[in-house]
Formats: sequence, structure tokens, C-alpha cells
Amino acid sequence: MKTLILISHPNLEESSSQQFLVQSLPESTEITVHYLEGAYPDGQIDIKKEQELLKQHDRILFQFPFYWYSSPPLLKHWQDEVLEEHFAFGYRGNKLRGKEFGLILVIGVGEKEYQTGGQEGYSISELTKPFQAMANKTGMTYLKPLSIFQFPYMTEEEKMQLLIQYQQWLMIDRPDSLKAREQWLIQELENTDQQLIEADSSAFILDEAIEMIEDNRLELDELRMHIDNDHQ
Amino acid sequence: MKTLILISHPNLEESSSQQFLVQSLPESTEITVHYLEGAYPDGQIDIKKEQELLKQHDRILFQFPFYWYSSPPLLKHWQDEVLEEHFAFGYRGNKLRGKEFGLILVIGVGEKEYQTGGQEGYSISELTKPFQAMANKTGMTYLKPLSIFQFPYMTEEEKMQLLIQYQQWLMIDRPDSLKAREQWLIQELENTDQQLIEADSSAFILDEAIEMIEDNRLELDELRMHIDNDHQ
Repeated sequence: MKTLILISHPNLEESSSQQFLVQSLPESTEITVHYLEGAYPDGQIDIKKEQELLKQHDRILFQFPFYWYSSPPLLKHWQDEVLEEHFAFGYRGNKLRGKEFGLILVIGVGEKEYQTGGQEGYSISELTKPFQAMANKTGMTYLKPLSIFQFPYMTEEEKMQLLIQYQQWLMIDRPDSLKAREQWLIQELENTDQQLIEADSSAFILDEAIEMIEDNRLELDELRMHIDNDHQ
Repeated sequence: MKTLILISHPNLEESSSQQFLVQSLPESTEITVHYLEGAYPDGQIDIKKEQELLKQHDRILFQFPFYWYSSPPLLKHWQDEVLEEHFAFGYRGNKLRGKEFGLILVIGVGEKEYQTGGQEGYSISELTKPFQAMANKTGMTYLKPLSIFQFPYMTEEEKMQLLIQYQQWLMIDRPDSLKAREQWLIQELENTDQQLIEADSSAFILDEAIEMIEDNRLELDELRMHIDNDHQ
């Protein structure tokens, strides 16, 4: 699973949320970060190079600030230039088919305003329809977006949770499923260097965590089986 | 009623539909046409000038090709730069409040594809939610969009109808109401220079057309009155 993150931001250096995300990126050959305004300061996009990059990855993510309910201008320009007919859609335009597509949105207004009666009046699902339609037209699977609301007001704990969510988003299969998130956590816990944990009790806690998650999964699977049988 | 048309297109000269629309624009002090890519070839937008222009008009229209279900990059850049806090929204940001806002969309795919099960999968109403949300946030009244589907496949008659619709859109109050469209047509017919019509019978036809439209309106008003009475 190779992931391509296309970051678009008119002023990346001055965005604390974008800096937080970028600095937390794990070093991995599975992840390619591509900052559009940095790569194309004059807006002249290398179409062939971008199309090659897309072909080399299985998951395409757009990461940007959600100004006026849409992407920054350069990302729209990238869409208009790179997602050509016969490449992304139309006759023989199947180069993106079967890939995953997702949005990582940094949003200045609180989550509860994004509903009927709220200050913004529309939900994120409604406002991102143009991207859903793009995924639809190009044959990509649309992932549940990672929406980051009001980053500056987040507590340290919330930021740590965001970091875990973000890394999961980049690295695991179908990041929006509970099962996948559990598997990722177990893997991370198993990989934790036991030498780094000083007390025996800490190692014990790690084992416990792993066991607990596995138990939960078994119980959930059993419950699901019962429900399925009842409905036959 | 002063109307501002913001046209955005990466290549206006080569677009037959945009050329058709632009060339049909009536000369009127009530209409201002502002072609963004022409005014700002380097993308450096004069924010204060744009804000002054907005303040001087009652109806703001965005006219653009609907690539990837959204506006061209420069129009998005214009939104991000010009629609500032304290101008368009937020504390004292009431400069657009009460104005009308509308979209004139040139669309390459057929109308019937813009529905569930169609090739595009989503309706124009769904895909334009970001613009509806913009109108909502800035306190503007959102007009029914003028969507022009597959211009190159239109017959001459369809193009003439489009031209009338377009001119109505620019010049009359609430262009989406039947009553307003009728009034505009009557006014245009009355203003038609009788000298230009050679045969007497043609003048008679014009009178007939005016009478017919007025009769229709009377009948519709009566019908509405009956319905209203029935529901009391």
C-alpha cells in the first residue's frame, strides 16, 4: 500500500496545523509527500510527472485548508491539468481505477456549525460532493475524510490523538474501519522496543493491551455471527 | 438593479460557448462584465478594487466552465483573497448582505447524467453546495443557477432560447420567477421598433403575443386565488 499525499496550502510555513502534520510524518518508503506550491511556485505543472506519480501509488490523499468550502487554487489547477481525459476518465482513461482517494481537511470553524441551522449551514459530506464526484468519475474508492476542526483550540491530548489518527490514515488499509485500526495498534505495540520500557510492569501493560484488543475483536465477531444467523 | 458578471475561464478566446454569451451581452450601464484572467494575467488580485466593485452592484454572478465540479483556479483565488473577514462575513462583515448571487455554468456533459445512476452521479444542486454555503455565509440570496449543458450540440433555436434566458438573467429582478420573465418579454416586445416590421400582419402578431401573455397571467392569478381560498 503506497500512499501519495498531495499537500496544497498558499502559505504552508505559517500554518501551525500543517506544520504539526508534516513534522509528524513517519519516514517510510510507503509514503510520498508532495507539496504542490513548493514544487510549482510559478503554477506550471509537469503533467506527465504528476501522472507517473499517481500511477505509482495506491492511495491518493488531498491535504489542504478548507477555505470557502473547497481546495486552494493550485490544487484545482492540478486537477484541471493532470486528470485528463484518456488518463483519469473516458476512453482508456482507467489509470486511477481501483485506487483509494481521501481528503485531509483543516477547518477553522467548529464541527457543530457544519449542519442545518449551524453557522455554516451544510455538512462536510455535502460540501465535499465535488471530490466525491471526482472519485466516482475516475473509479477511485472514496474514503471517509479526516476532518481537523479548530486545530489551535485542541488540547495536547487531542493533538496526540490526531497524530495517531493521521498516521493510521496514511499507513493502514481502509483507515476508516475499526478492524484495521485495531490491527495497526497491535502491530505498533508489538514493534515497541521492549528495551525502552524500564519497568517489567510496563511490558505487562503492553501485553494486556494487545490481549484486550484481540478479545474485543473476537467478541465483536461472535456478536456479528449471532446477528447474521438471526436474520437468515 | 446593477449586475456584476465575474467571468473566469483559463482560455476564453477558444471557448465557443463563452464567446457566444459574451458577444450577446446587451450594452447597458446596469451591467458590468469583469473577466478575471484578462484583468489579472499574473494572478495578483487588487483586493480593494474588487471589493469596491462588489459594493457597487446588487447582483453578483459567477460565470465559468464547470470543470471537475467547481470553478477555475483564479476564481477560487479571487474568493480566498477578496471575500475577507470583516468585509464579507464576521464582525462588521456585512458588505454583501442582501445582494443576489447566481451561477452561470457551462457544462460539457448532458443534463441527465447529473443524477443518481447517471454518469456524473450527483445533481448540479449537490455539486454547487460550496457556492450555496458561500451565499449563506455572506448573507446573499442564492438564485437558481443558469446551467448550459453541451453547448456545441445545441440547435440554432436552442441557442436563441439560451440567449433570451441569459439576457433575462442579467437584467430582470428575480430571473427565476415566471412573472418576472413574462414582464421582461412584454417590455421587450413593446420596445420593438415597429418600423423594422414590414408587413402589418407582423405588428398584429406582436400585439397578439403581448395580449396572450397578459391573459395567461390573469388566468394564473385567478387559479392561484381559487387554490388559496380552498386551503383556508
